[in-house]
Amino acid sequence: MHPAITYIQDRRDAFVEELKAFLRIPSVSTKSEHKGDVQKAAEWLAGEMRRIGLEHIQILPTAGHPVVYADWLHAPGKPTALIYGHYDVQPPEPLDLWITGPFEPTIRSGELYARGAVDDKGQVFMHLKALEAHLKTQGTLPVNVKLLIEGEEEIGSPNLDAFVLKHLDQIRADVVVISDTAMMAKGVPGITHGLRGLVYFQIDVEGTQSDLHSGSFGGSVVNPAFALAQILIQLKDKNGRITIPGFYDDVRRLSGEERRSLARLPFSERKFQKDLAAPALFGEKGFTTLERIWARPTLEINGLVSGFIGEGAKTVLPGRAMAKVSMRLVPNQDPAKIARLFTRHVKRLCPKTVRLIVREISGRGAPWLAPTDHPAMQALARAIQKGFGKQPVFTRTGGTIPVVATFTRLLKVPSLLMGIGLPDENAHAPNEKLDLDNLHHGMLSAAHLWLELAQTQVR
Amino acid sequence: MHPAITYIQDRRDAFVEELKAFLRIPSVSTKSEHKGDVQKAAEWLAGEMRRIGLEHIQILPTAGHPVVYADWLHAPGKPTALIYGHYDVQPPEPLDLWITGPFEPTIRSGELYARGAVDDKGQVFMHLKALEAHLKTQGTLPVNVKLLIEGEEEIGSPNLDAFVLKHLDQIRADVVVISDTAMMAKGVPGITHGLRGLVYFQIDVEGTQSDLHSGSFGGSVVNPAFALAQILIQLKDKNGRITIPGFYDDVRRLSGEERRSLARLPFSERKFQKDLAAPALFGEKGFTTLERIWARPTLEINGLVSGFIGEGAKTVLPGRAMAKVSMRLVPNQDPAKIARLFTRHVKRLCPKTVRLIVREISGRGAPWLAPTDHPAMQALARAIQKGFGKQPVFTRTGGTIPVVATFTRLLKVPSLLMGIGLPDENAHAPNEKLDLDNLHHGMLSAAHLWLELAQTQVR
Repeated sequence: MHPAITYIQDRRDAFVEELKAFLRIPSVSTKSEHKGDVQKAAEWLAGEMRRIGLEHIQILPTAGHPVVYADWLHAPGKPTALIYGHYDVQPPEPLDLWITGPFEPTIRSGELYARGAVDDKGQVFMHLKALEAHLKTQGTLPVNVKLLIEGEEEIGSPNLDAFVLKHLDQIRADVVVISDTAMMAKGVPGITHGLRGLVYFQIDVEGTQSDLHSGSFGGSVVNPAFALAQILIQLKDKNGRITIPGFYDDVRRLSGEERRSLARLPFSERKFQKDLAAPALFGEKGFTTLERIWARPTLEINGLVSGFIGEGAKTVLPGRAMAKVSMRLVPNQDPAKIARLFTRHVKRLCPKTVRLIVREISGRGAPWLAPTDHPAMQALARAIQKGFGKQPVFTRTGGTIPVVATFTRLLKVPSLLMGIGLPDENAHAPNEKLDLDNLHHGMLSAAHLWLELAQTQVR
Repeated sequence: MHPAITYIQDRRDAFVEELKAFLRIPSVSTKSEHKGDVQKAAEWLAGEMRRIGLEHIQILPTAGHPVVYADWLHAPGKPTALIYGHYDVQPPEPLDLWITGPFEPTIRSGELYARGAVDDKGQVFMHLKALEAHLKTQGTLPVNVKLLIEGEEEIGSPNLDAFVLKHLDQIRADVVVISDTAMMAKGVPGITHGLRGLVYFQIDVEGTQSDLHSGSFGGSVVNPAFALAQILIQLKDKNGRITIPGFYDDVRRLSGEERRSLARLPFSERKFQKDLAAPALFGEKGFTTLERIWARPTLEINGLVSGFIGEGAKTVLPGRAMAKVSMRLVPNQDPAKIARLFTRHVKRLCPKTVRLIVREISGRGAPWLAPTDHPAMQALARAIQKGFGKQPVFTRTGGTIPVVATFTRLLKVPSLLMGIGLPDENAHAPNEKLDLDNLHHGMLSAAHLWLELAQTQVR
């Protein structure tokens, strides 16, 4: 057995304790009051990188939160991999639904609970430990690596494109490795080869200058909450189809072979529904759940507020109403075009009795789909096979990693998505968690990946 | 001039300073954390009552916040008036829209700004000062009075019916006097002879047990915010008409004479719209604004929330959505019947893909309409004429004072609604205020009212 593998196996529990320190830092990138915590998480990462023997460690500023960079480039003739991840996390709210505090990592039944456990601190940590295993046992790595760990993924990576362009020579590589996705189920390791894109909007509707007494004024002016609800329900029809004109024009249709291949995957709609405790599944008519999530676009209300939402009754006629609405896109939809179509449609739907503001509040992400027969993709498949003891399946995901499209466009090299999350691990929700078996097998797979890639003609 | 009138005229500014102390107490009845403040406001009132020479002062417990009672019963052969008001206030939120703090009373341009200034502490205070004026100058009152000032009006007076029933003998009177309404405009003193009723609901819709990642799950389950929006927009049609079956069955139609009388009132739709800074007026088709507010029922969304409503973007698929919805009712609608119809209709509208909870969260209020030619009503008209120097108009209001219906039903005596508020004084909204001229003329009118009633055969 390779010494790096033994190194990981011998330190399984100790590594979990180290990860907890990373998870305790509330690096919520969307909230300005957490700016200091985001910086602290960057510094924690830089410290770890230094400790395990990486080089050229830098906390590089952007217009927003910094990027942490490091590399190790002493394997001449071998491929260079760029490892991308993020150290920022989603907001933990609503706090009252967490069983233990979001920033107090706690193990229950072999799962580590904390905001960021799976998305994405745990998966970044997995790579650090695999690199440490090689460096501490061999003093060397089988390939060259560069690490680019950003702090703004959860707000749509608004400054990453500019960063990549500015540091293009510094980060050039033969392959990009990203661990920020989930496998289908425990015991079903997988490789993600498709992602959805994203555009994210906020709609503000104003009726009167201030809130009014619902008795003294009710019935005489438009209620902005009604006007907003009216706009929102006109964005989708009863069959779950988005009604924005032109929205589906560029959607790549699923081939018969693709649909059959999706249907063969170990996925149970009944179990999916049961796990969510949902009274029913619902989505675009004519498609299966996997097709709806992986290969069809969607439009969702992410947030909605108007008037009095506290305890008890307040007889107020709201002066304004707000919704956050985002769309997930699939190949070959263009985020810029969809953003235009959405804005125009919402403006057309809005009644003249209220004032309207529609604005994008997050960076755009392009959809992505990669061939599964590329040599680097096959090297990853072998590594996972060795790390998990099981042949991986090729899957897609409904989520967005805007940087994948960015790397594809700017670096023109393949991206390998090696995710060890599980679908029920509550990324972006209360009680986020990470399966500790998966973390361990993920570390083993990552250690194997460098050995496999060293023997692969990537270009 | 009567000494009581001179007393009030001599102390105009000093009285405003006294009122400020009352307004500084944040007696928000809907919030449990303000329970102590509500009690403090009751004690402040009791103290004032004692100081000005009222008797039998008691802070009487209820299942919720207490009632403050006092009386003065030394005018044998003269009518007995029951003065009703409330010392609790609406929540001040949203706080950031207040120019000065809601509980830091501030005078700007002849108006006193504070939560409760007009609704209803200022108007309760007006009566205290009119009684003080008689007692301090004459040592006596022209009539017998009882005061019942409650602490739960802003949450729908859930315990007042029981209180009135329990203390029926103690509070029996020949006429009820209530100051908790507004006049049409400055310089247009009025008497309110009609009120709308109220039923208030909360609707909770649940899709999945917890919030989900909008990428990983978007498109596969119903978004509860969509489901709720769908329910809400089906409660009213495009013409502003409520679509709940049976809702209008018992609505008393406006007679031609009533419509003509409303049209004669000094009311400008254009000014009304301009004051609200609303892009347009909107309401039930076929009715004027005054008819919509005073004589037609309405259904309003008072609050709405789902998912992430903080700063920035969060890619969450909400697990639940909540709306607060209330209806204002007119004669002869029955709140209990409307509550049944609403609940049944919402349940019918709710898609099977989500779980639904519909519940009433506030006490019901019955609509009320009184004849304008009653001798007590005419006595009030003369008192206002003397206090304001102008003949009052008879108006209605879109608001609800549930206790009026309660008194009508249980005491079987007329109620006099003598309100000194103005429509733009932001009751229930940020920057609530009270016109200090109206406060002064209101005190004079109240002092006159006791002189006029003493010469009136009320029964």
